[in-house]
Order: sequence, then structure tokens, then C-alpha cells
Amino acid sequence: MILYSMPSSGNSYKIRLLLALANKAADIVDCEYGSERLNRAKADGTLPYGKVPALALDDGTVLGESDAILWYLGEGTDFIPANPVTRAQMLGWMFWEQYNHEPVIAVRAALMTYPHRAADATPERLADLLDRGHAVLQAMEDRLSGHDWLAGDAMSLADICLYGYTHTAGSLGGFDMQRFPAINDWLARIEAQPGYQALSA
Amino acid sequence: MILYSMPSSGNSYKIRLLLALANKAADIVDCEYGSERLNRAKADGTLPYGKVPALALDDGTVLGESDAILWYLGEGTDFIPANPVTRAQMLGWMFWEQYNHEPVIAVRAALMTYPHRAADATPERLADLLDRGHAVLQAMEDRLSGHDWLAGDAMSLADICLYGYTHTAGSLGGFDMQRFPAINDWLARIEAQPGYQALSA
Repeated sequence: MILYSMPSSGNSYKIRLLLALANKAADIVDCEYGSERLNRAKADGTLPYGKVPALALDDGTVLGESDAILWYLGEGTDFIPANPVTRAQMLGWMFWEQYNHEPVIAVRAALMTYPHRAADATPERLADLLDRGHAVLQAMEDRLSGHDWLAGDAMSLADICLYGYTHTAGSLGGFDMQRFPAINDWLARIEAQPGYQALSA
Repeated sequence: MILYSMPSSGNSYKIRLLLALANKAADIVDCEYGSERLNRAKADGTLPYGKVPALALDDGTVLGESDAILWYLGEGTDFIPANPVTRAQMLGWMFWEQYNHEPVIAVRAALMTYPHRAADATPERLADLLDRGHAVLQAMEDRLSGHDWLAGDAMSLADICLYGYTHTAGSLGGFDMQRFPAINDWLARIEAQPGYQALSA
């Protein structure tokens, strides 16, 4: 398998983290924003939806969408719950991540860190994203205050998925993580897993 | 099962359509925008993430997120492909729908049809959404020009999911559907399925 992955992107990192935790191997092709390698992969049609991450299988099929790739790699592992209700709750958090979390938490971090996004980083927009982001994080805090994991009672793809952009929400996105002790405990719980690999690794 | 459903919402309609196509029964509780019933369900904590649709199971568990509910109800039916790669491609379209399609296609329709959204419907915003929406629809057109269905060679949850807001993209969202003949054929293919039920039914 070949993983087309953007080193700085939480959506790509999710996949690398699952590979590490599940002890699965893939060749990683770094496609950083603006790189010649990314532009080439976009131009030659390698990437479904024109986006990274993308996972090329040995038969040439290329899967897109980070959370769908997580699902594919997660099948047959303990990271997909056996219980159908828990499985649906896990997917619920993953859809919520794409609709509610990423467009706020990841976007604020991108506006603050990627030079090509600086022109969009108006004070009004950053302030709006800050308020909305704290509300998004509060939804995670509410769940994690009473539970160790987002879906069911074991670590699942939902936790790997949400870890991607949540663990840098303070350092890159400027969100006030002091407000969210249960999230901080949960981040530490993931970082203590055997095989854990950091974003920059 | 009890489905909390917003009659006018494509996200809620997806679930009703799957129930009809799969011949499954649920009690439907109408929660239209601004209704007392919706406000009550939000206030009493019935709705995960505070959103409809939500599916209450017989044991009291309530599932949220439209596409996760589709997954739950689709398990054991032919609408989830048996092939793991096709299954991941199906989920890829569903995640793409929440991230790329709904925030453009559904949002433009909402701005144009819901009175409480009218103040946000500036000409600049509508023009921007129109351009982005045509690009989103083109991605579907590209796939459907060579295939009858979005994932694999049979109808799946991806088709039901994307049908939700695509079938009203012209009538409610003002998108130019004449540009997308393969999408129009695909809409007709879905509407010809046994058990098909329209949005307003």
C-alpha cells in the first residue's frame, strides 16, 4: 500500500497514527502543501476528490477521505467495535468530526500557521472560530467527562480520528485547552498506547 | 424505534428514504425547524449533538448523525457492499457529502428557502455557493458518467445519502442541473426503485 500523506495535516496524520497503533505497514509519500509532489499527484489524477490523504492499494485502487481510509484499515482490528450500536456511535463521531470539528478546529490552526492562509485570518474570523471551537470542544468534554473513550468503553477509530486535530488545538489553533480537563486526560490516554507515534515523527 | 426527523431536511429525509427502500418501520416524530417539538427535544437532551435526525432505539440509546444512522439501519441489507474496498468507497462518498456537498448544496437551498436564513443570503454568498456547488456536482457527474452508482456496481448507502440534497439542488438551491445529465439519470434510477418515497411523502 502507498499512503499519500501531507506531513503537517491532521487528516493525514490520523492514518499514520492508525498504521502505527495497528502495526500495519504502508509506503508513505510525503505531499506537503504546495510541494511539487502534491501538485503532480493532483495533476495526474492519482487523488480521489483531488485531496490527500489517499491510500493506493496493491491492485491500483486509490481510496480517498481520511475517515473512510481509517475504516478500511481498521476492519478486522479492535479499533472497530463489534457491537452494532457502538459501531454506529463511532461513525457518528467521525461524521461529526468532518462536519463540525475539522471546519472549525483545523481551519483556525491552518489560518494561523499556513502562510498561504494568512490573508484570510481576519480578527473577526479568528474570533468567531475561537468561540465556535470552544463549543465544539465542549461537546467532546461532555462525553469524555464520564467516559474514557468517545464510543463504547474501548479506544476506537473515533478516538484516532478526533485526536488528529484536537491534540494541536491549543498549540496551533490557540484554543484554551485548560477548560477541558477530560479532553486532556483523553489525549494522554491515547499517547500512552503501545505504538503511539507523534505528528512530527 | 423512533426517528426524530425534520420534514424539510435532506439529512432527515435520507433516513426516511432508507427506511422505505429497506422496508423497515420506525415511528416518525416530526421536528420541523422552529417547532415546539424540536425545541423540546433539544432542551430535554434527547438529541445527540443537539441535532436532528436522531434515532432512538428500543433500549433508549439515541443515535445521531444522519450518515451514521444510515449505516446502523443499513447493516445486514444489500445497501452496504460486501466487498471491503467498495464499502470504504461508499463511506468515502458519505464523508465527502458531509464535508464538501452538504455545506454548499444544502446551505444554498437553506439560504434561499428558510425565512430565518434570509438575512445571510447576500448576493456575494449566493454567487460563491453557486460556483462551488457546480464544482461539487461536477465531481458526482464525473463518477456517474461512467457508472450507474457512486460506489461499486449496485445502489448503496452512498447513493441514498447523496440523493438527499442533490435531488432538490435545482428546485431549492438554484443550481443549473442541465449541466449534469449523468446526475439526472442517476436521480431517475433511484426514483424507480421499489419502495421509493419522495421528500414530501
